[in-house]
Amino acid sequence: MSDSATSAAGPKADASVSKGLKGIKAADSSICLVDGTVGKLLYRGYHIDDLAVNCTFEEVAYLLLKGELPNAQELDTFDDPLSQDAALSPAVAEFIASAPTDAPPMAVLRTAVSLAGLADPTADDLSPEGAYRKCIRLVAKLATMTAAIHRARQGKEAVQPRPDRPFAENFVRMIKGTDPTGDETRAMDLILTLHAEHGFNASTFACRVVIATLPDVYGATTAGVAALKGKLHGGANTEVLEALEAIGTPAGIDDYIAAVKARKGKFMGFGHAVYQVEDPRAKHLKQLSRRLGEEQGDTTYIDISEQLEEKVTALIGKNCNVDFYSASTMNYLGIPKELFTCIFAASRVAGWSAHILEQLADNKIIRPSANYTGSEERTVTPMAKRG
Amino acid sequence: MSDSATSAAGPKADASVSKGLKGIKAADSSICLVDGTVGKLLYRGYHIDDLAVNCTFEEVAYLLLKGELPNAQELDTFDDPLSQDAALSPAVAEFIASAPTDAPPMAVLRTAVSLAGLADPTADDLSPEGAYRKCIRLVAKLATMTAAIHRARQGKEAVQPRPDRPFAENFVRMIKGTDPTGDETRAMDLILTLHAEHGFNASTFACRVVIATLPDVYGATTAGVAALKGKLHGGANTEVLEALEAIGTPAGIDDYIAAVKARKGKFMGFGHAVYQVEDPRAKHLKQLSRRLGEEQGDTTYIDISEQLEEKVTALIGKNCNVDFYSASTMNYLGIPKELFTCIFAASRVAGWSAHILEQLADNKIIRPSANYTGSEERTVTPMAKRG
Repeated sequence: MSDSATSAAGPKADASVSKGLKGIKAADSSICLVDGTVGKLLYRGYHIDDLAVNCTFEEVAYLLLKGELPNAQELDTFDDPLSQDAALSPAVAEFIASAPTDAPPMAVLRTAVSLAGLADPTADDLSPEGAYRKCIRLVAKLATMTAAIHRARQGKEAVQPRPDRPFAENFVRMIKGTDPTGDETRAMDLILTLHAEHGFNASTFACRVVIATLPDVYGATTAGVAALKGKLHGGANTEVLEALEAIGTPAGIDDYIAAVKARKGKFMGFGHAVYQVEDPRAKHLKQLSRRLGEEQGDTTYIDISEQLEEKVTALIGKNCNVDFYSASTMNYLGIPKELFTCIFAASRVAGWSAHILEQLADNKIIRPSANYTGSEERTVTPMAKRG
Repeated sequence: MSDSATSAAGPKADASVSKGLKGIKAADSSICLVDGTVGKLLYRGYHIDDLAVNCTFEEVAYLLLKGELPNAQELDTFDDPLSQDAALSPAVAEFIASAPTDAPPMAVLRTAVSLAGLADPTADDLSPEGAYRKCIRLVAKLATMTAAIHRARQGKEAVQPRPDRPFAENFVRMIKGTDPTGDETRAMDLILTLHAEHGFNASTFACRVVIATLPDVYGATTAGVAALKGKLHGGANTEVLEALEAIGTPAGIDDYIAAVKARKGKFMGFGHAVYQVEDPRAKHLKQLSRRLGEEQGDTTYIDISEQLEEKVTALIGKNCNVDFYSASTMNYLGIPKELFTCIFAASRVAGWSAHILEQLADNKIIRPSANYTGSEERTVTPMAKRG
């Protein structure tokens, strides 16, 4: 190929290309503010530290969807559909019970969310009230789906949701099959609250791109699950737990650190694309994880985690992020690592829902351009003459 | 609420927000060039007029996925998996056969694509060869799924794909249950070729946003189907057929035009977001639609279409687009209007696949920013004190 042909067909550098759309403001949004320089995360103006300590996940989900925290009566009205919609339709329950147990749980969840739309005769209702109802329904159902996927993978019957139980308590109950302790419920509430929203991350943006063509809330949420499944997005805490398992006891930390350094590997659960200082979510889980470890009489993983945090931060100068302590916390809750990303989805669906409703309220189809770097115009050679 | 509070919480105008990302170059891409000012559409450098006349959909799909047109041997090698992967897994076939017949076909297709991933033990293989194989598989399967959805909605058994038949012939055969005529096959080939690719449209962009987190090809394609389902994207030719049905005979055209004008309505199938002149794809379908009408001894819909095109273009100064003549063409193929968007998906999956592979080859997670317009920082009021 001649130089001129290479130049004609090869990529043309274009400084105006925003690969990954980093720094491009794709819309106005009133849901979330992340200030990575000071480690601040606000949902609708409330600091995550404030919400983590003072609110349940139901209140946080209401806040994200409606813009304000509920009073007692508003929360009751919100809790009704949240409880009643938690049960799965027979088709979805049967699908989950019979899904291949070697399939990734997130692929099962993605299919279950899509399938749930078929059982809803008003699935395509995108009126403000209709879309809002679908969102509550999906916030309710993703936890039940996640628990049912877990039970099916263990060869166990699904545990039915109980409308009289608070959301987090019900969720742990459906996973474990027994009533959780207070700290277990509190840990799940925290996990759900801390992961519920984080601005225009990839899965949330996928939800917005899809809903902007005006299909249905189930399809947009399916896209969110599909994106969260990716290892660049939802899978980091799974890798943290794998590290804890590999380390085994606090005595194994130094060898582990040396091994990661030797292979020029990455320390999972450290650093963040947005936070240049401490991830404000990490400290809440650290505390709960220790309490659960002590309650269960086995502090191995929290001991490893705390010592590993100290050594790795000193070594690489990066703080741990929300994934780091969520690994040991979820482990103490009896949640296997293959299910971690589904738990994340069952929380983030509250944020996805808020963004879906915000997109619908002031919609414009999302359709960027591309910088064309392909072949110049050419003509089709008849098949017989193609080289 | 005081003015100052409104101002603090209200949207802040920001000229740097690119709502809908219009005009933002999100990536380099060598797949497609659309020049709306002169009505030019190139796939990999080849003009759509050239491809429409000289290539089958198999060749076009190969071109989109691999970048070059195949020679006879390369096409053979490509056809093998395309034929062999066309059959559905038992789980997908059973799901489609038993899906609620009142559910939107695109919601069934979305779920079927997601479900297909569960039956593939190598679904998560995103190596260049692995991802390429998944893409061929999905190009093969979406046609079979679409035909099976149609048959199930008619209460009929699915027609199995025949590996010895060309793609378009097979597709019409699986829809109708009988062998198509040459012009029917040619019409389907054209429909598939003309809809296969169109740059960074919303469904293609949804595929890229999802695959960029590195989940799996099934999830990315599921998101494409979810986005195409929206009425702002894939549904226009359905509305064109509804107009033809409402008009009934050429004598009804003037009344129809008067009625649309009276209610200040929109003429479906005219104008395009990108093409300021003629949509280059429209004329090919116009010709085929007439041939099919004559072959079937009923030219009513093509007669209406041609006269409607002339009158509406004279009236509103807009040319018809690809959707306009695809409506009558698909109707002559015996495809009910509820299925039109699925046919579009079975074609566009070739373009989605090309974009998925291009994104994977030079990946960066797609994560724009938002312009925060929400509440200033505030503190949680205890539940008992909330208004």
